Amino acid sequence: MDKYNIIKVNASHKYNVMVSNGMLHELGGVMSKLFDRCSIAILTDDIVDALYADTVIKSLEANGFHCIKHTIPNGESSKNMDSVLSFINFMASEQITRSDMVLALGGGVIGDMAGFASAIYLRGIKYIQVPTTLLAAVDSSVGGKTAVDISAGKNLIGAFHQPVLVFCDISTLNTLPANIMRDGFAEVIKYGIILDKELYNNLLKKDSALLEQIISRCIEIKRDVVAADEFDKGERQLLNFGHTIGHSIELLSNFTITHGEAVAKGMVIAAKLGKECGYADVVEPIKNIVEMYGFDTYCPYSATEIYKVALSDKKRDKNNITVVLPESIGKCVLHTISTEELYNLLNRIKL
Amino acid sequence: MDKYNIIKVNASHKYNVMVSNGMLHELGGVMSKLFDRCSIAILTDDIVDALYADTVIKSLEANGFHCIKHTIPNGESSKNMDSVLSFINFMASEQITRSDMVLALGGGVIGDMAGFASAIYLRGIKYIQVPTTLLAAVDSSVGGKTAVDISAGKNLIGAFHQPVLVFCDISTLNTLPANIMRDGFAEVIKYGIILDKELYNNLLKKDSALLEQIISRCIEIKRDVVAADEFDKGERQLLNFGHTIGHSIELLSNFTITHGEAVAKGMVIAAKLGKECGYADVVEPIKNIVEMYGFDTYCPYSATEIYKVALSDKKRDKNNITVVLPESIGKCVLHTISTEELYNLLNRIKL
Repeated sequence: MDKYNIIKVNASHKYNVMVSNGMLHELGGVMSKLFDRCSIAILTDDIVDALYADTVIKSLEANGFHCIKHTIPNGESSKNMDSVLSFINFMASEQITRSDMVLALGGGVIGDMAGFASAIYLRGIKYIQVPTTLLAAVDSSVGGKTAVDISAGKNLIGAFHQPVLVFCDISTLNTLPANIMRDGFAEVIKYGIILDKELYNNLLKKDSALLEQIISRCIEIKRDVVAADEFDKGERQLLNFGHTIGHSIELLSNFTITHGEAVAKGMVIAAKLGKECGYADVVEPIKNIVEMYGFDTYCPYSATEIYKVALSDKKRDKNNITVVLPESIGKCVLHTISTEELYNLLNRIKL
Repeated sequence: MDKYNIIKVNASHKYNVMVSNGMLHELGGVMSKLFDRCSIAILTDDIVDALYADTVIKSLEANGFHCIKHTIPNGESSKNMDSVLSFINFMASEQITRSDMVLALGGGVIGDMAGFASAIYLRGIKYIQVPTTLLAAVDSSVGGKTAVDISAGKNLIGAFHQPVLVFCDISTLNTLPANIMRDGFAEVIKYGIILDKELYNNLLKKDSALLEQIISRCIEIKRDVVAADEFDKGERQLLNFGHTIGHSIELLSNFTITHGEAVAKGMVIAAKLGKECGYADVVEPIKNIVEMYGFDTYCPYSATEIYKVALSDKKRDKNNITVVLPESIGKCVLHTISTEELYNLLNRIKL
C-alpha cells in the first residue's frame, strides 16, 4: 500500500495534498524532491511546537533546508494583524527573500495566518501547509483562502493565496483534545451533507479506521469545488453551508462557542430554513448526525440577534444575502433572499 | 480636441487610465457609464481633502453613488498597517460589501494604502485611483503594486491588485508644492532614461505645455512594461532603475530625504555602477537632467552603509542582487551580481 494518498489540486497553480498516517519525519525528503534548497520560516503555536516542531525541523535540516521558527500562543485570539506583523517583521529580520518559503505547522489559525503573511510579505512568497488538526486538514489547508480577524469582525481581511504543498500526517491528530477533534467533524459532516451521501453514510458508522479515507474524500470534494470556483463567485459558496448563521453565533458568543459548535448549530438552522423555503425536510437527519458527533443543537440567541450580525457577513451583496440550503442529504443549493426575507424566515422557524 | 487622453491597460483585467486637464468634476458621470451604482469608500489625506474631496463627492453623488470618506494625515508616516486597519474597520462599520468600491483620492501614499486595503478587505474589492500628485500619476496609480511600510522596512508588505479605473486630472497638480512636484519628476526622468530617448529630450525643454503629453507617455511606458510582466519577474524590474540604491538612501535618512531625491541620487549612482561594469558612460547626461530639475546628486552615506541596507531589499535573490544599469539614454539592462561584487563596486566608484 502506498505511504501517501495524493490529491492533485489544479488551482491558479498546481500542487499536491499528500495524506499519510505517520510520515511527518519524511517531510524534508519529500520537499527536497519538489523544491530548491532555501530558508523555511515556520509559523507554529506553543502547543504544536512542543509536539511536532523538532520532527519537522530535523527532517528539513537533514535535507538541506535552513529553518527559522516563530511561535505564537495557541488559539483564535492570536489570529490578528499584530501576530501577522510580528511574524513578518521576524522574517524580514532573518532576511527571508522571495525565493524562500513559509511553513504553517498547526491548525486553522496557524494556516490562515501563515497563508496571509506569505500572501502579503514582499507581495507574496510560497507557503506550505502542514495541518495538525482535523479542521485544518479538511478545510483551511486546501483552497487558498487566508484570513485574519479585525476588531470589526472575523476573517474580514485576507487574500486568495494557494499553498505549493499540503502535507497532512493524520497521526498528528492523535494528540488532539477531544473537543478540537469534534470541531473538525462539523466540517466533515458538512461535506457529506452538501455533496456526498456516501460520505454521510460512512460517518454514521463512526469507524476510526475510515479516518484517512474520510479525510482524503473531504479534501477531494473541497478540491473539486475550489477548482470550479477559485475566487468564490459561485459554487464555492456551497462550502458556506451552516456558516452564515454559524459565524453569527460564533461572533455573538464572543468565540466562547467554537467554530465547529457554531457550524453544527448553523447547519441545523439552515435545514430549518430550507424546510421553511419548501426545499426538503432534512432537519432530523442533520440533527441526528451532529448529535452523534457530540454537538448540541441549542441556539442561545434570538432571530433578531442573529439577523443583525449576519448583515455584516462579507458574502452579503447590497440588500440580498445568499444562504446555502439542503435539497437532500448530499445536495445543497444556493438560495438568495432579501435581508428582510431572512429576518422573517428566522422569526418563523424555531431556532 | 478630446477632453481625455485614454490609455488602455490590459493586466489581469482591462481598465483605462483617463488623463485630462480640468475634468475632475466629471468623475461621477464617467463612473456612472462604467459601473453599477454602489457605495464608494473614499480614502484621502487632510490636505487633499480640503482641496478636492467636495468636487469628487458632489460629482459622484449627483450620479447616484453613495459616498463615505475616511481622512488620514498627509505624509509617508501614515503609510502603515494601523492606518490601513482603521480604514478597513471604518468600511466594515459602514457595511461596505464586495459589490462596493474604494476610491483613492491623493498621492502615492493614499494610492498604496487604498490599493492594499481594497486588496485585503473581504479578500479583495474593486478600487479606483484618482491621483493628485505627479508621482502618483506616472508611477503608483498604474501597475497594481500596492504596499505599506512596517517597522522592518518600507513597502515590505503589499499585494498585486489592479484598479478598475485611473482618473487623472492634471489640473490637480497646480496645487502641489514645488518640492512634491519635483519629486515626481525623478520618476518621469527615469522613464526617459530606461526606455524613451524622445521623452528625455522633451524633458530637456522644460516646457510646461508638454506636461499632459509627458504624463501620458510615462503612463504608456509603465503600461507596456507592466503588461509584459505583471508579477514583477523580469522586465518590470527595469522600473527599479535608481531605486535599489535610492531606497537604501531613503531608509538611511529615515525618510528625511524624499523618494524623488533618493531616486535622483540613485540614478546617478547606478550610472556610475554601469560605467564601472563597462556598459556606457552616461553619468554626465543623467547628472545634468536631474540637476536641471532641481535635485542635488550628493550622497551623504558610505558604500558600506548603502550596501548593508540594500541587502534587505526585497528584489534580492539569495546571494545575488539585480541592479538596473544604463546602456545608453533610453535603454537600460538588468544586471545580476553577487552581493560581494556589489560591495566591491560601491567601494570603487565615487558616490
